[in-house]
Amino acid sequence: MDDNRTSVSVLGLGLMGQALAATFLKAGRATTVWNRSADKADRLVADGAVLAGTPADAVAASDLVVVCLSTYDVVHEVIGPLGDALHGKTVVNLTSGSSEQARDTAEWARKNGAAYLDGAIMATPPGIGAETSVLFYAGDEAVFDAHEPVLRLLGGGTTYLGTDHGKPALFDVSLLGLMWGALNSFLHGVAIVETGGVKAREFVPWAHMWLDAIKIFTADYAAQIDAGDGEFPANDARLETHLGALRHLLEESEALGVDTALPEYSRKLMEGVIAQGHARNSYASVITAYRRPAR
Amino acid sequence: MDDNRTSVSVLGLGLMGQALAATFLKAGRATTVWNRSADKADRLVADGAVLAGTPADAVAASDLVVVCLSTYDVVHEVIGPLGDALHGKTVVNLTSGSSEQARDTAEWARKNGAAYLDGAIMATPPGIGAETSVLFYAGDEAVFDAHEPVLRLLGGGTTYLGTDHGKPALFDVSLLGLMWGALNSFLHGVAIVETGGVKAREFVPWAHMWLDAIKIFTADYAAQIDAGDGEFPANDARLETHLGALRHLLEESEALGVDTALPEYSRKLMEGVIAQGHARNSYASVITAYRRPAR
Ligand SMILES: NC(=O)c1ccc[n+]([C@@H]2O[C@H](COP(=O)([O-])OP(=O)(O)OC[C@H]3O[C@@H](n4cnc5c(N)ncnc54)[C@H](OP(=O)(O)O)[C@@H]3O)[C@@H](O)[C@H]2O)c1
Ligand SMILES: NC(=O)c1ccc[n+]([C@@H]2O[C@H](COP(=O)([O-])OP(=O)(O)OC[C@H]3O[C@@H](n4cnc5c(N)ncnc54)[C@H](OP(=O)(O)O)[C@@H]3O)[C@@H](O)[C@H]2O)c1
Repeated sequence: MDDNRTSVSVLGLGLMGQALAATFLKAGRATTVWNRSADKADRLVADGAVLAGTPADAVAASDLVVVCLSTYDVVHEVIGPLGDALHGKTVVNLTSGSSEQARDTAEWARKNGAAYLDGAIMATPPGIGAETSVLFYAGDEAVFDAHEPVLRLLGGGTTYLGTDHGKPALFDVSLLGLMWGALNSFLHGVAIVETGGVKAREFVPWAHMWLDAIKIFTADYAAQIDAGDGEFPANDARLETHLGALRHLLEESEALGVDTALPEYSRKLMEGVIAQGHARNSYASVITAYRRPAR
Repeated sequence: MDDNRTSVSVLGLGLMGQALAATFLKAGRATTVWNRSADKADRLVADGAVLAGTPADAVAASDLVVVCLSTYDVVHEVIGPLGDALHGKTVVNLTSGSSEQARDTAEWARKNGAAYLDGAIMATPPGIGAETSVLFYAGDEAVFDAHEPVLRLLGGGTTYLGTDHGKPALFDVSLLGLMWGALNSFLHGVAIVETGGVKAREFVPWAHMWLDAIKIFTADYAAQIDAGDGEFPANDARLETHLGALRHLLEESEALGVDTALPEYSRKLMEGVIAQGHARNSYASVITAYRRPAR
């Protein structure tokens, strides 16, 4: 179905939309673009893009319509009124939003006779097109398969997650959360070792080595969580042992005048989970504090 | 100096001390042990260890004395009264504590004519002796060099950090903090994707891929921090962009009934740093919220 000549239309030329359109163009795809502020298309037009005067014109130009606007509300504002013009088109929405917004938009597209993939971009605009960049997609598998070659131009880590349109949003925020959690505690650690005259770059290789060790823990914990039997065997260390070690981090932070709010967060978290009977369980039992309470 | 026959004494046979002594024995070292509760030595004695009746006897038996007790207070209780008996000995203290306790104990050892290394064990007892296990040491370099062969038996990642006896404790708590930060946000992410019927083990490979991406960020941020010019150029994303993305995590968590306290922590943190003028800076600027305030 993809014969290297499929054209593509890109709606939204913010930082990200411009990167998407530029990548399609660079790969030799006929590319039509639309943006509310038309001047953001100037450079792309100079590079061969066709500027559409309205969203309807952009949608008419290609079977594949990639949408990347600031929010889902804007998406509905821009393509919501197009009605029949969407019939038979494939809309790939790379706008960030919630899993519910993604599922609702998929339902709206279905009613309008459009094929719909929801996506999430795990990269910044300069990363678009890179071999390592990950973009998640969900929706009908045949639709993804049909457009995979052109979508893969945006990142070598292009991945189909399944039919649930909400999944890319769930993976997106979960991975971003992992990033902030790791970065916060990394920076806190740097603030601590700095007090001993240690340069951040001296700490980095140890942080990397340690993140690799943490990967091993997460694989073990995932298996315990998936087992679903409420057992979290302490194969490495008990939660009460973690809490004991945490006290050293707290006391050291306090003594050095480094922030204590981050270790205090972990202390309250662990104490709460221990109070629920998990003292002798593994750290995986902390998930019970995060999960939606059972109904 | 180390001719494979250097004997070693181990004071403290808790879970960790037993693992240390067992590893020395397994490597064929003459090993003398002492513990307050003597029965914890039974298995080691069966394997060839010599049980000392008092800490003084244990110290007299070997030039190298490895100490692993619950706290520094206990260390001083146990070896503090030995006085002259310590003269000429090398004490390697693997008890967890603060950087200040480590430096104070080094000073105390110096006054008693003992060579002193302070250490931190980045492994659990079953990891002792493994090629990948890291143990940090600090103190006089010649002392470390002299005992490195026997210390390296405890872990292939045996590392000398320099002369500041406080450094192993600083690295220890900083790396543990990184672990809790990463594990908490990993488990929070699992709680989110679970709502979409995703198994934790499906999320794991993405978390690992993402942790590798995070490593690259930390290296960039470390260079910005070390530059020390208060500039944090947003080579990847601005702090205000992070805050925008964080709102998706918060809203998603709220909508799903998953814990919001963890993303709320990050929201307050980022908002505070932005209020200090870092909106257009990289995430590295968050360290300003953690550091000891400048005097
Ligand atoms: N940048 C990143 O690093 C990154 C990474 C992953 C995901 N994303 C996601 O990609 C999406 C776009 O991000 P971006 O960085 O390109 O943002 P941006 O630079 O702020 O661009 C926003 C886009 O939305 C348009 N827009 C906003 N309100 C509109 C309205 N009422 N009517 C019509 N158009 C409107 C803007 O048009 P005007 O030009 O006319 O204002 C522009 O095209 C967001 O959902 C973002 O979360 C971005
Ligand atoms: N276990 C780990 O995973 C791990 C990892 C890294 C670092 N560490 C550190 O290693 C050290 C020992 O840990 P562990 O796991 O072996 O702890 P543990 O199993 O609780 O053992 C504690 C040791 O301290 C002794 N002790 C406590 N109070 C004493 C007192 N007043 N007088 C004399 N002896 C006393 C105990 O003797 P009795 O047997 O007579 O009670 C025992 O030998 C701690 O600082 C810990 O933080 C442990």
